[in-house]
Amino acid sequence: MSDLLDVDSRPAPESSEDSALAEYVAEVCRRLSAGLLRETGDDLRSVVAAEVRSVQWALEDPAALRDRVPVHPPRLDHRGRVRMFTNPVLSQRNPLAPPLTHVSDGDECEFRVTLPLQYQGPRNMLHGGYVGVLLDDVLWYAVRHASTGISFTRELTVTYERPVPLFEELRIVGRVVEAEGRKTFAEGEIVAGGQVCARATGLWIAPKPRRDGHGSAG
Amino acid sequence: MSDLLDVDSRPAPESSEDSALAEYVAEVCRRLSAGLLRETGDDLRSVVAAEVRSVQWALEDPAALRDRVPVHPPRLDHRGRVRMFTNPVLSQRNPLAPPLTHVSDGDECEFRVTLPLQYQGPRNMLHGGYVGVLLDDVLWYAVRHASTGISFTRELTVTYERPVPLFEELRIVGRVVEAEGRKTFAEGEIVAGGQVCARATGLWIAPKPRRDGHGSAG
Repeated sequence: MSDLLDVDSRPAPESSEDSALAEYVAEVCRRLSAGLLRETGDDLRSVVAAEVRSVQWALEDPAALRDRVPVHPPRLDHRGRVRMFTNPVLSQRNPLAPPLTHVSDGDECEFRVTLPLQYQGPRNMLHGGYVGVLLDDVLWYAVRHASTGISFTRELTVTYERPVPLFEELRIVGRVVEAEGRKTFAEGEIVAGGQVCARATGLWIAPKPRRDGHGSAG
Repeated sequence: MSDLLDVDSRPAPESSEDSALAEYVAEVCRRLSAGLLRETGDDLRSVVAAEVRSVQWALEDPAALRDRVPVHPPRLDHRGRVRMFTNPVLSQRNPLAPPLTHVSDGDECEFRVTLPLQYQGPRNMLHGGYVGVLLDDVLWYAVRHASTGISFTRELTVTYERPVPLFEELRIVGRVVEAEGRKTFAEGEIVAGGQVCARATGLWIAPKPRRDGHGSAG
């Protein structure tokens, strides 16, 4: 899988060290996000001070991160424009993204993730909206994987069977159930400890073909 | 509106300065999140270095943030446990939260927000999953506002009419359309520039009452 289907690109317009720094700072933001919600008072100040020192260390010593291979460096597209993989579910460089780990493609696409405190809705449970975020992205990925072009979400229904836990590994799977002309129907679920916690079904629609035979997405 | 319906609490178990520091660091994480996805190379390093300096300054000079009034300090509940408002859509202390600004309650609950780069799906557009996050939370808020107890999302359907833009103000509104026993149905939409971009309908269910007359949520 090359860059999560975000192909059509040439090597990065920044050094590998700078890309590694960006992904490291994204990790620091993730740890800080959990820390701000877990700690108070002096413990809070200690967590913040430690993370600030770790970023300073990474900034001052270019060799500090040299063993890190950036997962999502920026690329240049065919027009020479910088193209950053910003996806807030999958990109290592986006602190909003957990990010998901891709496990397999096939009849089903599967991702895994263990979510920290900043995704909390009810106590120790994933926020309902973020249940939808995970399913939306994995179903979109399955639709994209099964087709040649881009499709846009038209409708997504999420059904909540039981709470989705934080702090333990989740399996998120998606599959195409029907494709008919420009329409693709997909479904999937989030599984924790062998039990289905939430399901989703959705409809994706590809843009109308242009006269030159290419889609008009973008 | 007291603390976004998260009432039942006593004053914070940390100093106002420390709560202000936590909310300031959350803001820094938000700015860094956009910066990591916008900048490359030397510009990236400059952005990171400037944010690190600003946090150091806030850590070293306790008076630096003294004019900030923390919006979501931690509280103690009736059992004396620390209770943090962690909501990843509404909490100032959670870097994942944009956060939304509450505008009004009434027949409709309304929030507003302008979203930065880290929420991007298609170019300059909000990621489809996050369209659901905004609607889920505002509809849940409307359900909670109209009732006396907690309800849990059972199903949410999001319909995408047109792309939701980043970088311009969005109105997100939610309202209860029917309440029947433990079930509450709600709907809402995201509006940008006077046009509805996405709609949602959902069902929320309250826990079965316990024998002592209280709900069993928690």
